[in-house]
Amino acid sequence: MAHVSTTTRVPRTRLSPEQRRVQLLDLGVQLLAHRSLDELSIDVLAEEAGISRGLLYHYFGNKTEFHEAVVRHAAADLLDKTVPPDGGEPLERLLASVAAYVDYVLENFDGYVSLVRGAAGGNETLRGISEEVRDVLGERVFLEDADFGIVPDNPRNRLLVRGWLAMAEELVISWHQNPSQVTREDLLAMIATALPSWVGGVDAITNAKGA
Amino acid sequence: MAHVSTTTRVPRTRLSPEQRRVQLLDLGVQLLAHRSLDELSIDVLAEEAGISRGLLYHYFGNKTEFHEAVVRHAAADLLDKTVPPDGGEPLERLLASVAAYVDYVLENFDGYVSLVRGAAGGNETLRGISEEVRDVLGERVFLEDADFGIVPDNPRNRLLVRGWLAMAEELVISWHQNPSQVTREDLLAMIATALPSWVGGVDAITNAKGA
Repeated sequence: MAHVSTTTRVPRTRLSPEQRRVQLLDLGVQLLAHRSLDELSIDVLAEEAGISRGLLYHYFGNKTEFHEAVVRHAAADLLDKTVPPDGGEPLERLLASVAAYVDYVLENFDGYVSLVRGAAGGNETLRGISEEVRDVLGERVFLEDADFGIVPDNPRNRLLVRGWLAMAEELVISWHQNPSQVTREDLLAMIATALPSWVGGVDAITNAKGA
Repeated sequence: MAHVSTTTRVPRTRLSPEQRRVQLLDLGVQLLAHRSLDELSIDVLAEEAGISRGLLYHYFGNKTEFHEAVVRHAAADLLDKTVPPDGGEPLERLLASVAAYVDYVLENFDGYVSLVRGAAGGNETLRGISEEVRDVLGERVFLEDADFGIVPDNPRNRLLVRGWLAMAEELVISWHQNPSQVTREDLLAMIATALPSWVGGVDAITNAKGA
């Protein structure tokens, strides 16, 4: 049986351990759409995946490691979906990236909020992942804008971008909870516009002081 | 002895239970300058205050209630110290209030970070206090600015102000951890300028759309 022809065999439905792990993490991230991280236990995942708790412990060790793996997976997913499009004006690319970010947060709301807040809370590893995401998102602003100089790369603007990301996070969470009369389009414009407006405003002050 | 002259008595050093409680809360807030909330136990306070743990349990019930009381006290203190000055241009008053806020955070840094992050984490009561502080700070912007219309009171700007407060929080924490080449004065200008810049930037887009 060492030379079974692959063409005559039924397609392999058996996943490799790594593929199965990724599939479980995808499911974990999906479950976070309407659940906080605290509500996502290994039991819940086992039930949804239709596999034994024992197998999940085999994959993820314990609840903390499971949560960290899910959060890492969600973070990679967020970064992947918010890559700015190739070409176009930097502000258009920024707007496209902001739109992808806002959609991601809205589609994964409960989990996202618990990630942001949970990461802000006790767990150092979760906080580290949260920090990495902000670093990558911030770095992108300067990479995207490098040829245009709307947001020149300097220590002051690096600080501004950190503040801008915190603002974006708060804005989309607050808007989801109470959109009042603000449309999604307005929200995107508010977030994307804030950065160049702010840089311009601070530049004006600095220039006035220098003059 | 019913008519002892008050002028001949030594000053009363014995505090009422309420005064003593406030004094202990003041000490609790002070201890948070270089400690996270988790590190502030009733034991630590007892040692610093030189009184028994039993007495502290009498005042505060348990650790959770003690933490909530300290956080409530710190929040009231923050709100008190950041009241904008009377008179002056709204932007000057905003800047003065921002300066008081930044100084407060810097003077109470470890505790402040743990409050912001801890409140964002598990405890609903702490999160509620954090929300109240943001509500009051946000409300002030509109009260202060009512006669000037730099930040007109509408749902969109209420959302912007929430984002602005989150940004200010992030900025002062990030700056304290890594001031790079940004001075305190620059930091204050960055925070205060953001709000009118954002409102102006969003207005420009809305007007362009309407035109």
